[in-house]
Amino acid sequence: MMNTRVVAAGLRKRICSADDAAALIAPGMTVAMSGFTGAGYPKTVPPALASRIDDAHARGLDFRINVLTGASTAPELDGALARANGITMRLPYQSDPTLRDKINDGEMDYLDIHLSHVAQNSWSGIFGEIDIALVEVCAIRDDGKLIPSSSVGNNKTWLERAKGVILEVNRRQPLELEGMHDIYYGTALPPHRVPIPLLRSGDRIGERYLHCPADKILAIVETDASDRNNEFTPPDATSRQIAGNLIEFLRHEVAMGRLPKTLLPLQSGVGNITNAVLSELGAVGFAGLTAYTEVIQDGMLDMLQNGTLTVASATALSLSPSAFVRFAEHIGQFHERIVLRPQEISNHPELVRRLGCIAMNGMMESDIYGNVNSTHVMGSRIQNGIGGSGDFARNGYLSCFMSASTAKNGSISCIVPMVSHVDHTEHDVAVLVTERGLADLRGLSPKQRAQQIIARCADPAYQPMLQDYFDRACHQSFGKHTPHLLKEALSWHERYIETGSMRS
Amino acid sequence: MMNTRVVAAGLRKRICSADDAAALIAPGMTVAMSGFTGAGYPKTVPPALASRIDDAHARGLDFRINVLTGASTAPELDGALARANGITMRLPYQSDPTLRDKINDGEMDYLDIHLSHVAQNSWSGIFGEIDIALVEVCAIRDDGKLIPSSSVGNNKTWLERAKGVILEVNRRQPLELEGMHDIYYGTALPPHRVPIPLLRSGDRIGERYLHCPADKILAIVETDASDRNNEFTPPDATSRQIAGNLIEFLRHEVAMGRLPKTLLPLQSGVGNITNAVLSELGAVGFAGLTAYTEVIQDGMLDMLQNGTLTVASATALSLSPSAFVRFAEHIGQFHERIVLRPQEISNHPELVRRLGCIAMNGMMESDIYGNVNSTHVMGSRIQNGIGGSGDFARNGYLSCFMSASTAKNGSISCIVPMVSHVDHTEHDVAVLVTERGLADLRGLSPKQRAQQIIARCADPAYQPMLQDYFDRACHQSFGKHTPHLLKEALSWHERYIETGSMRS
Repeated sequence: MMNTRVVAAGLRKRICSADDAAALIAPGMTVAMSGFTGAGYPKTVPPALASRIDDAHARGLDFRINVLTGASTAPELDGALARANGITMRLPYQSDPTLRDKINDGEMDYLDIHLSHVAQNSWSGIFGEIDIALVEVCAIRDDGKLIPSSSVGNNKTWLERAKGVILEVNRRQPLELEGMHDIYYGTALPPHRVPIPLLRSGDRIGERYLHCPADKILAIVETDASDRNNEFTPPDATSRQIAGNLIEFLRHEVAMGRLPKTLLPLQSGVGNITNAVLSELGAVGFAGLTAYTEVIQDGMLDMLQNGTLTVASATALSLSPSAFVRFAEHIGQFHERIVLRPQEISNHPELVRRLGCIAMNGMMESDIYGNVNSTHVMGSRIQNGIGGSGDFARNGYLSCFMSASTAKNGSISCIVPMVSHVDHTEHDVAVLVTERGLADLRGLSPKQRAQQIIARCADPAYQPMLQDYFDRACHQSFGKHTPHLLKEALSWHERYIETGSMRS
Repeated sequence: MMNTRVVAAGLRKRICSADDAAALIAPGMTVAMSGFTGAGYPKTVPPALASRIDDAHARGLDFRINVLTGASTAPELDGALARANGITMRLPYQSDPTLRDKINDGEMDYLDIHLSHVAQNSWSGIFGEIDIALVEVCAIRDDGKLIPSSSVGNNKTWLERAKGVILEVNRRQPLELEGMHDIYYGTALPPHRVPIPLLRSGDRIGERYLHCPADKILAIVETDASDRNNEFTPPDATSRQIAGNLIEFLRHEVAMGRLPKTLLPLQSGVGNITNAVLSELGAVGFAGLTAYTEVIQDGMLDMLQNGTLTVASATALSLSPSAFVRFAEHIGQFHERIVLRPQEISNHPELVRRLGCIAMNGMMESDIYGNVNSTHVMGSRIQNGIGGSGDFARNGYLSCFMSASTAKNGSISCIVPMVSHVDHTEHDVAVLVTERGLADLRGLSPKQRAQQIIARCADPAYQPMLQDYFDRACHQSFGKHTPHLLKEALSWHERYIETGSMRS
């Protein structure tokens, strides 16, 4: 017991195996787990639970649970439970291939909601009672307080709301994370809400630790496993071109006096394109920037190290293995300059609006009027989920959506006559970027937007088709404010389903 | 000059006729006008301007301007300028039949944006320079400060941003309005934003008057005209049934402990249905409620008088002539209990979220998955605009959308397979209400939502068609998370355009 991270001696008697902890989870339970973008998720109890579920199913018994998390997790959580057909309902975000297939086969329910809404909806009882919180932490201090792990997510809410708690104490997470978290305990349900006293990305307004009453802790499992291992792929030429187009625009906005030289706090969705934007920002000479975002990826670590970024606020550290090693080796450099917060705060409408975030998110497709689909392939098949993109796009200062102009070797145009699903309405989309160019939609009417989007963002192979649709719609549409030909509006998606290509 | 409301003697030399004031407005100018929901708009300069424009057009000259307002105005503003073909671009909201036709005929541009975004977008220069602010006020005080009129809207921003100012001083507006306004001068562009110190609907955090430097005032026109005259029609049976369904739900939420007995601050869109909700709330015994909304309609005046409502915050008083008489006669009763704010504050995301508004707005149609269309008839023809519905639906605590289940004598179903335009995504819609019933969508996956919406909200004549679509989509859809048949998804709208009915 000498090197245990369960420093609170009174709690050591709760230490048990993952199998014993998993045995506390019964069919029909709602289990709220830690984990955000492959960081800080429980690593041993979910696979043990999946085995239990497999055993039950082999014996002809029903065994499914509801799974709540921060955001996406990893194969040993979402993948294992989905493979076991162990989930009835999953929320609020996922990116696991096995889980995704189960959802799209109609075998389980998935609730895709704004990440900023999860905590308040949980408190207001919308998700029902939470039976078990299953949360990874770095350590349990002598005073019983919990040193959070590499993500905070909804852990504060889960620990408060759950009837019982299982902790995974992961010795692989660096103990030096202690003090990097800022857990704000000041939120409430209305009518008891007060202003959140955060003025700058780096402000610390809360506590360093998570609280959990000792008598709620049912089991503690000691683990030694790293977060999800996705090695970072360097940005490809298309991503770099998209990044270049966005950065040219940002420089123009600075030159016009519409943005400060240090920009405004950056929010950056997960992925190759946004990582390319981050890399390029330093290369072209931006310095002294700040980030107020959900996830710190490799690109932001580089920026913090080279001075492009002074401070980064997020709810998770989602680093590749090599970047994580670099982070751990130089953790002193990052300790004061990275703040990890509950996702209720990282994505809070009040704060996103006050700080004036520059929201940079990927999209699946946009239509010629600037409505954006972030979630549904061909209108019906969920990819991941809306995540925090709506939190930032709706309340941020500048809302940018980015994508390559085509997908699947050109068989899909990411600019279409009408999107097959809307996650971000025309009212919430300011800037669209592809490798072809950038459309600044601010202050434009629908028809003006269409002309910009077709000319600047669409792939040349699809431009004539889009222009033809728009021209005919301008003459034949029922109304001519947002011209559409309803018989054709979704025909590109129909054609793709039927022929494998949107090309006519 | 004895009874002039231009008390500032030094400004009286700027008093002139409406024609002289209108002569200050040149072709191509951007003119930012007061006016919100038919209240507090300029009443004599716009018609004089329309005459000027008619004259210019008769002489073969080009004369069009850009018109910015708070929200909708009246026939003598939007109607007159539209009839004269005098508008190039109009924002952010309108409801005028002539103007609407011009927009839908493709003859002018209309920018339909969130009402909370107008001030910040104007400050950041997105709408270009503002040449003239044309603002109705109650009076000009001796110290040059302006007593605002029956609406505040964007007037603070217009007066600050415009190069020159024309004031209409309307002696028909009661001078006792003085002190009912709360003009908050604390907003800024990022990175200079701070928390807005408002904790309750009735809090006063600003000043009683609008500021305007004397040297910017180009002309003052004295007027004597009432606001738009729409007499109030009592709610019909359908509206009362919708209201009854929503109120039954609110009572249930109170009984379950999910809402306080005094509910949470009410936001109520304009119209017959929301007026019916307000009337019924008092009738069933609610008391001590508050409102944090855009517009105070007749229903809220009743509630303030009978004690159902303790305080109402809004940006405009939009009363019928008879209610306005009642308001003016008993203004002492209302003076401390009505607060009129800039629309930047009445609709501010930070405040809507903090207060936890119950957002109650009308809709045009919803689809079976809970996506709501508030603006576009058959996907292309704009009706009015999104107004503040997005501000409240997105950041409020409980987002409710209401409509009759059918329109046009049953030839249109307001529940459709897929909406033809999305203003409020599935992520932002909590409750749908028709006269048939109420669907509580919170915590439900798309397919669960569809079952609720079809069963509870749709008209019986359309229920089998919706159920048939959904059942077939569940089997044949490309993905089965949000099942759709793309060939049919918009066929109901196509059929309506072709045959005049959605019935098959």
